[in-house]
Amino acid sequence: MVATDTVTTADDATRVLSIDAMGGDNGPATVVAGLALFLKVHPGTPVLLHGRTDELRPLLATHGLAGQVTLRDAPDVVTMHDKPSQVVRRGKQTSMWSAIDAVRNDEAGVVVSCGNTGGLMAMSMLRLRKIDGVNRPAIACLWPSRNPQGFNVMLDAGADIRADQDDLLTYALMGASYARNAFDLAQPRVGLLNVGTEEHKGRAELKVAHELIAATAAAGEFDYTGFVEGGDLPGDVCDVIVTDGFTGNVALKTGEGIANLISDLLRENLRKTPFSILGALLARGALRQLKRKVDPRRVNGGVFLGLTKTVIKSHGSADATGVAAAITLAHRLADQGFSDRLAARLAAALPHDDTKGSDT
Amino acid sequence: MVATDTVTTADDATRVLSIDAMGGDNGPATVVAGLALFLKVHPGTPVLLHGRTDELRPLLATHGLAGQVTLRDAPDVVTMHDKPSQVVRRGKQTSMWSAIDAVRNDEAGVVVSCGNTGGLMAMSMLRLRKIDGVNRPAIACLWPSRNPQGFNVMLDAGADIRADQDDLLTYALMGASYARNAFDLAQPRVGLLNVGTEEHKGRAELKVAHELIAATAAAGEFDYTGFVEGGDLPGDVCDVIVTDGFTGNVALKTGEGIANLISDLLRENLRKTPFSILGALLARGALRQLKRKVDPRRVNGGVFLGLTKTVIKSHGSADATGVAAAITLAHRLADQGFSDRLAARLAAALPHDDTKGSDT
Repeated sequence: MVATDTVTTADDATRVLSIDAMGGDNGPATVVAGLALFLKVHPGTPVLLHGRTDELRPLLATHGLAGQVTLRDAPDVVTMHDKPSQVVRRGKQTSMWSAIDAVRNDEAGVVVSCGNTGGLMAMSMLRLRKIDGVNRPAIACLWPSRNPQGFNVMLDAGADIRADQDDLLTYALMGASYARNAFDLAQPRVGLLNVGTEEHKGRAELKVAHELIAATAAAGEFDYTGFVEGGDLPGDVCDVIVTDGFTGNVALKTGEGIANLISDLLRENLRKTPFSILGALLARGALRQLKRKVDPRRVNGGVFLGLTKTVIKSHGSADATGVAAAITLAHRLADQGFSDRLAARLAAALPHDDTKGSDT
Repeated sequence: MVATDTVTTADDATRVLSIDAMGGDNGPATVVAGLALFLKVHPGTPVLLHGRTDELRPLLATHGLAGQVTLRDAPDVVTMHDKPSQVVRRGKQTSMWSAIDAVRNDEAGVVVSCGNTGGLMAMSMLRLRKIDGVNRPAIACLWPSRNPQGFNVMLDAGADIRADQDDLLTYALMGASYARNAFDLAQPRVGLLNVGTEEHKGRAELKVAHELIAATAAAGEFDYTGFVEGGDLPGDVCDVIVTDGFTGNVALKTGEGIANLISDLLRENLRKTPFSILGALLARGALRQLKRKVDPRRVNGGVFLGLTKTVIKSHGSADATGVAAAITLAHRLADQGFSDRLAARLAAALPHDDTKGSDT
């Protein structure tokens, strides 16, 4: 496996968070502000913070965090416009690379970065191994939903534009494991995204995946809902929705676009007359609650699943609240030893060609 | 071509609307109520209404429409649960079949039906010819958007789960022609849906379609925007968005799902406290305006493009307002001789193998 030339023991290190302070649209001040919000709730959590130490030190001091966070100097930054191919070729001096290598070297358990998604994915794929049995890692994202937990997990949100039937089966297992660990759902309900719920609908690989996922539900400890439709992403018929990264990415951006349109129109319309202005003032609390429920900042934190270590991608335009949400998710997954649990689950549930039993 | 055993002349017949009164979730009473709303604004429009005449006659009388509408008796109804294969095999006595055959026989110019989408598509494909050069007809639907016209056209919304590069080119031409005729956009802007706007992104057929559409923009009299993302469906970077029917269907249902979730949460939250109830009351007008803007009933009316006659699918759960919107669209397209214009446009702009020039 990987080198372990570190001073911490493996168990301790699993709980350490490795945070890329640079990248993102709002720069390191926002990341440090988010970290401060997180540490107020979870004081003493061990954190490695990667970036330009001369920029980070004063930011940490401002928030009274000097000494609470271990700094790792990295002179370069992956910008939002760097192509994945550039990032992996010329990115060795970046804070992103440093943050990933800390988990590669078993110094930390989970990575958090606000940087460029394509770059983060490419670098993670290069530096971290895929879990045995995983062909295509996936990005899992969260949808505001009608479910009691308030969210649904969707994967793949865009790690790969393709997914065959075996990938879709792997996504079902990974998504169920993630939902169980992140949201305390003992037996998550998993659906497969299609253009209709009838069995005869959809592409050939979806029909095969439908059979494969149904056959693996018991071993994966999830309930298989069958085919679901786009309207179920924010719905309550299942907790995890499986799709290829092309469809998932389009659905995610469509949902965000519609939510933003409605929010903007609501604001505009409420400004139109003195009555509506007064009305909006009186209903302020209710409108704020709604905003919180569908706020992309609070459902922030796409997670790369399928690598031996967990990597969390925070939204590039996340503010401090959004960054804090992503770090809180990282803390929870690190605390539960999620990466190892996921690998064990896949080993136990995926069909094996080369071994007779699972290794866990 | 088709038989023309009718008394009306071809030009007159093009303006006749052929309406399937049955099917849909709400039955013929809603269709007739919608027709009445339409005829109030456009009195004297010639209409053929297909269905059980003994049910339809009293409904027409209720709305004072007796004598204003020509009835065509059809004893059977395509239900929302009938499979397309059943519909085409056993549907000869249905109102849907009768409505389609009226345009097939050149007695009318445009069909409107609230019935089962799959059945309507299958029956239309069976009874109406495809326009020369069209391999896969498409369903065009409307999105509420930030554009001045208030809508964007998206196709394919789900006629076929596949689309190759040539289909996508055809969709671009058909979508542009539809936007020009339905919304008075002289030079519509057409975008191709992808997971990113950079040229290197997306599936192989998208990259080829990107080149084909760019090369055909001048002949098709549209501006090509290039790749667009899910967030642009309700946006203002283009007026027409081209995609395959799988992605389009998922996006459409996702958008509806998110809009419904937000609308329900808004209603719930505004009921929570006396302040918010009073606020909602004062802002009632503004909230109603918003609802109208994103109301699926008003953007009702999916259109099948690529057949020699235009077929409009109204939402199955449409109420009278929704039905009236679909009939109004049909009236506009019929008045402009849209079906013939579309065929001429495709003949002029699509690459020809067998002829040296276009036939228009």
